[in-house]
Amino acid sequence: MKVVALAGGTGAAKFLRGLCRVTDPADVTVIGNTGDDLEMWGLAVSPDLDTVMYTLAGLVDESKGWGLAGDTFACRDAMGQWGQATFFGLGDKDIATHLVRTERIRAGASLTQVTDELRRALGVKSAILPMSDEAVRTHVRTPDGWLAFQEFFVRDRCAPAIVDISYDGADRARPAPGVLEAIAEAKVVILCPSNPISSVGPILAVPGIRQALAGTAARVVAVSPIVGQAPVSGPAGKMMAAKGFEVSALGVLAVYEGLLDQLVVDSQDAPLVARLETKGVQVLVTASIMTDAEKEKALARAVLEGSS
Amino acid sequence: MKVVALAGGTGAAKFLRGLCRVTDPADVTVIGNTGDDLEMWGLAVSPDLDTVMYTLAGLVDESKGWGLAGDTFACRDAMGQWGQATFFGLGDKDIATHLVRTERIRAGASLTQVTDELRRALGVKSAILPMSDEAVRTHVRTPDGWLAFQEFFVRDRCAPAIVDISYDGADRARPAPGVLEAIAEAKVVILCPSNPISSVGPILAVPGIRQALAGTAARVVAVSPIVGQAPVSGPAGKMMAAKGFEVSALGVLAVYEGLLDQLVVDSQDAPLVARLETKGVQVLVTASIMTDAEKEKALARAVLEGSS
Repeated sequence: MKVVALAGGTGAAKFLRGLCRVTDPADVTVIGNTGDDLEMWGLAVSPDLDTVMYTLAGLVDESKGWGLAGDTFACRDAMGQWGQATFFGLGDKDIATHLVRTERIRAGASLTQVTDELRRALGVKSAILPMSDEAVRTHVRTPDGWLAFQEFFVRDRCAPAIVDISYDGADRARPAPGVLEAIAEAKVVILCPSNPISSVGPILAVPGIRQALAGTAARVVAVSPIVGQAPVSGPAGKMMAAKGFEVSALGVLAVYEGLLDQLVVDSQDAPLVARLETKGVQVLVTASIMTDAEKEKALARAVLEGSS
Repeated sequence: MKVVALAGGTGAAKFLRGLCRVTDPADVTVIGNTGDDLEMWGLAVSPDLDTVMYTLAGLVDESKGWGLAGDTFACRDAMGQWGQATFFGLGDKDIATHLVRTERIRAGASLTQVTDELRRALGVKSAILPMSDEAVRTHVRTPDGWLAFQEFFVRDRCAPAIVDISYDGADRARPAPGVLEAIAEAKVVILCPSNPISSVGPILAVPGIRQALAGTAARVVAVSPIVGQAPVSGPAGKMMAAKGFEVSALGVLAVYEGLLDQLVVDSQDAPLVARLETKGVQVLVTASIMTDAEKEKALARAVLEGSS
């Protein structure tokens, strides 16, 4: 059964790891967020694509949820001594990934091509597609001005108030090769438990992708990353509020208005089911907090089967 | 007293370290070889400039004579896993230097500018100038074809027979800003104990530099890197032979024909003095093998004073 998953970083990667253990990984196509890609020290860095790739390859640093297990930071420390920004702390082994990506892109390869080369070299059986080969960059407007996403997220630890979020370049971006085809061929399209604004939002902002989801014959199902009145992790709540959405599964449904056949909510949100269903969506209630591999698999199985 | 030194890598760096301890380092201008520069993993690497810089900054790996002391190689190992060439094994801290250089050059800085920024950041008081901002690349012709210098030197460990050596791009290169001015203002110009063909040779191949040395009022003095019939280190002998020069202090003098006021030879070469002097050069005999800091200083002092 062909499955497409729209994915951000850590939360999506854990879900996808479960998914690839309950279905054939070769049937899974990941469409990854590139809105928080950045150039750091001259290197082309794609944090969400790499988090998914490293996690599916079994190489991720489990304690952080990103980066490579056992990595060291000698280069980052030296960059600091050179007076370079080190808030986005690339590890020494991780830098090799970025060197390879950067060199391939400078040589004319697309992000789609190099992402495919990298995941194959690591033995990842699922296709990982960037949402677009064109640069889309998420920016966060604070009372003091616009910040690049990683300045807000990593450097400033999500502390500034949020006035607005933009996806710069999205209007000129095209879906990467394979993205629309994968959505058209899928039986199930999953919006992973990722930040609806800063992880799934940039993907949906690429012209053509939202329309493909609205028009596909596939079952489209989202896993709410909001449990109760708060996100499982990260600044999703703050961002949803800034965009005028309620911070709840109802708000998640509103962000994805017109796209979903089904919304998966955590057992804690069972009281919301009746209200969600009045919005014309099927609701699946299950345990959605992935604290171990079994829970990742159980959630993935429920989403895949459409029932708990 | 203004001093200019034409320098290759390890041997020159040790000599320059001694020199900077017996004269004011701010009076020393190093003109460094860039003929063995390379692009590795997309990074702009200048091995000789860095060896001089790291040595004068007190940061060099003493056991190897290049690279940074205490460096690690996690990134290199990861690059090997990505299938990238790892013969030129950049260390994790060293990579930071190349990242900074590469980014500055991509941003439009010249190699002269970034080299100056780097050496100042490390507290090196001597100016370090690349011989040229234009790319000059030393190639070694073997019976099996042409090799880039580092392929011959590092990857193939100088094993192939040498048919010829070329300095690609030298004919179109210009001396870097400050090079001709430094030579014109110097009281002493020192050709460091470096490979005359692959270290000093590329510098002399940049149009204008040989002429400036021939025309300067400064005392021009070379330290022979050949002691007896062999180089102190490296492939200088093999390269001199390939270019038709005798592998001896007489051969070194022949490579530098028309440039020298004085040649410094090791005590072992005292028997050659009469023959050298018939070529119209003053000969200084002294201990030239730098096995410790005192010997580096003693050699530098003798060269600077023009007498032992």
